[in-house]
Amino acid sequence: MADLVIRDRVIKKGSKITRDEAYELSVILAEKGLGRVSPNPPVGCVIVSKHEQLLGWGYHEFYGGPHAEVNAVKSVEDSSELKGATVYVTLEPCAHQGKTPSCAKMLASLPISKVEYALKDPFSKVNGKGAEIVSQQGIEVRLWEGTEEKPYIKDLMYIMEPFLVNKTKNRPFISLKTAVSLDGQMGLASGESQWITGSEARRHGRLLRAYHDAVLVGVGTILKDNPRLDLRDTRFSDLENSVIVLDPKSQLKDRWESLSLIKERVKPSVYWITSEPQTVKFPGAEKVVNYNFPIENGVFNLKVLLQNLYENFELSSLYVEGGALTHSNFFAYGLMDRLYLFQGHKLLGTHQNMGWTNGLSINDMASALELSHIDTVWFQDSHLLIFRNNLQY
Amino acid sequence: MADLVIRDRVIKKGSKITRDEAYELSVILAEKGLGRVSPNPPVGCVIVSKHEQLLGWGYHEFYGGPHAEVNAVKSVEDSSELKGATVYVTLEPCAHQGKTPSCAKMLASLPISKVEYALKDPFSKVNGKGAEIVSQQGIEVRLWEGTEEKPYIKDLMYIMEPFLVNKTKNRPFISLKTAVSLDGQMGLASGESQWITGSEARRHGRLLRAYHDAVLVGVGTILKDNPRLDLRDTRFSDLENSVIVLDPKSQLKDRWESLSLIKERVKPSVYWITSEPQTVKFPGAEKVVNYNFPIENGVFNLKVLLQNLYENFELSSLYVEGGALTHSNFFAYGLMDRLYLFQGHKLLGTHQNMGWTNGLSINDMASALELSHIDTVWFQDSHLLIFRNNLQY
Repeated sequence: MADLVIRDRVIKKGSKITRDEAYELSVILAEKGLGRVSPNPPVGCVIVSKHEQLLGWGYHEFYGGPHAEVNAVKSVEDSSELKGATVYVTLEPCAHQGKTPSCAKMLASLPISKVEYALKDPFSKVNGKGAEIVSQQGIEVRLWEGTEEKPYIKDLMYIMEPFLVNKTKNRPFISLKTAVSLDGQMGLASGESQWITGSEARRHGRLLRAYHDAVLVGVGTILKDNPRLDLRDTRFSDLENSVIVLDPKSQLKDRWESLSLIKERVKPSVYWITSEPQTVKFPGAEKVVNYNFPIENGVFNLKVLLQNLYENFELSSLYVEGGALTHSNFFAYGLMDRLYLFQGHKLLGTHQNMGWTNGLSINDMASALELSHIDTVWFQDSHLLIFRNNLQY
Repeated sequence: MADLVIRDRVIKKGSKITRDEAYELSVILAEKGLGRVSPNPPVGCVIVSKHEQLLGWGYHEFYGGPHAEVNAVKSVEDSSELKGATVYVTLEPCAHQGKTPSCAKMLASLPISKVEYALKDPFSKVNGKGAEIVSQQGIEVRLWEGTEEKPYIKDLMYIMEPFLVNKTKNRPFISLKTAVSLDGQMGLASGESQWITGSEARRHGRLLRAYHDAVLVGVGTILKDNPRLDLRDTRFSDLENSVIVLDPKSQLKDRWESLSLIKERVKPSVYWITSEPQTVKFPGAEKVVNYNFPIENGVFNLKVLLQNLYENFELSSLYVEGGALTHSNFFAYGLMDRLYLFQGHKLLGTHQNMGWTNGLSINDMASALELSHIDTVWFQDSHLLIFRNNLQY
């Protein structure tokens, strides 16, 4: 088990560790599960002895695998040290038996004296029950304290938001992504758009695909750019991301064979949303799932469609890459939890239809869509601004 | 004389100080002159004894006042300590007698052993000559070393750019400023634009006015918003900033009396640029200087006009606040050294004519106007991105 590092400080088993460090370490561990645990949330766990020494740690590593608490307990070499220990975990221990046994019951059976968790589980099968199971055994159970202003709590909320949205709204978490010039243009009047942002920024954009369950695009983007929409990230070389294509008029019907989306990818991963049933016959057709959904006034009712995708295919987070028409539809339904705004450090001049919010209709300043800045990532010649939609919480 | 502070470290006279700290301190001192020394550049100076102790410091505090080197030498309490000392200064000492005596001659007369300066003076009356005068007295003179990657050198270049542009291009330094939504809109279709950015951001925008010799706007902005365009900054409560209004058709002719620009300001400070001579008769008319300049195809030849303003009125840096038509003209003439892009954290939807680069005509990606990011300032609900125009250097 590799040593852990918090801000350049190496932490080994047996190291003295403060409560605040245990909190932060739990969050750092949770982040390691990003891209692999969905539709479960990423969770991290740290166990500290009664002498305030680090005993062990773990995180939820992949969907279907052991939970963070189980991995943490397993990592403790001398189990007699658990006596009087404190378990720090980013999410309330699960109360129910699912793919794995209940973590609450497992913790309740240990000689530990305290469990501190950051967030209550919003999932009704767990909420409060996990804590109850543990405390019934005389183990003190409480929420993390004094963390309101801590940067790691912002980090935790950032990675937990998809799960919280899933459980409270019963729909996928929705990230809108766009890449524009400093004057807000997605391209030139000629349609030329390669490249507005630099290669580092585009690589980061692909990493973000891995952090979502599926990329979603409108058929126009496929017809115009014939993109692969894949990850090309060494950290996720074993994964194939899913792609959802909204194609109300079945325009892709006879074109699948020529699409990079299919030709250059290995596993079945494309959800083709059409308003009429279609059969896909060509080499590679097994990679495409045709899903039918009625249109209303020429467009899909996204609210219902996404709920269906969430329930039928467990697609719990979507990375919506446009184009502008698709973004418009998401704006129209108020379906944006997070905005990933890539800005290339150049000016293109304002061009007709090259804004990315053409379909967002705002008539007075009081109705403007207000966002909260979460984070910024800097690249060579471009940057990424990340926002939360204030209306969603 | 107050103690100096570098990154929370208080530095007193007599403190040990490294060469790198002396460099950084000189830059921090230079910055204190911002907004008061133009058309001179801001300059800072630090004197360190042969025992590497801080002897004194100074900066150019106001236009017409003593230069940094003079203030630094004056601040040394025991002049016998100058023997073998090193003088650190952000700009090559001036060679010529101007409003004040030559600093190079003054330094040459001291028993110091070394002068280290950051930048050669681009002004032909000084370039290399200041260094020569000092070294002729057996004093070692050299450029700062090992500073390429230092943040304070970026800070120094940032504050020196206006002066460098003045001297190398014989025109004012030109900053374009705009305040837009995250989707690049200056306002709504209704014209409503108050407020896209928050009050902190707008306050910072007024501070930037103080750092330039004049604000420049097109007549459209005056007619639409009737702005004061003043500073309202406690640090500059003794100053009145100048304003240039481009008004080719003399549309303000009979409106001056109603303009906040005049009514709510004290000193003469408005340059009214018209294509035909105008007389201004109303209470407060003495605040307005009418300057005539011919139009070509309905617009002013900005290249020539700005050169004239620079030479006739010593207006060495302009803060161009728009509107979009005015920005367009600056783009058309390639006249932008720096971009101050305020972005409010909201989406307005794309509206016809509410982009701020409507007049920038780019037809292929290779011709895009490429910028380099210099700095970011964060505010509540908005931020400011600062860029350099790559083409200018």
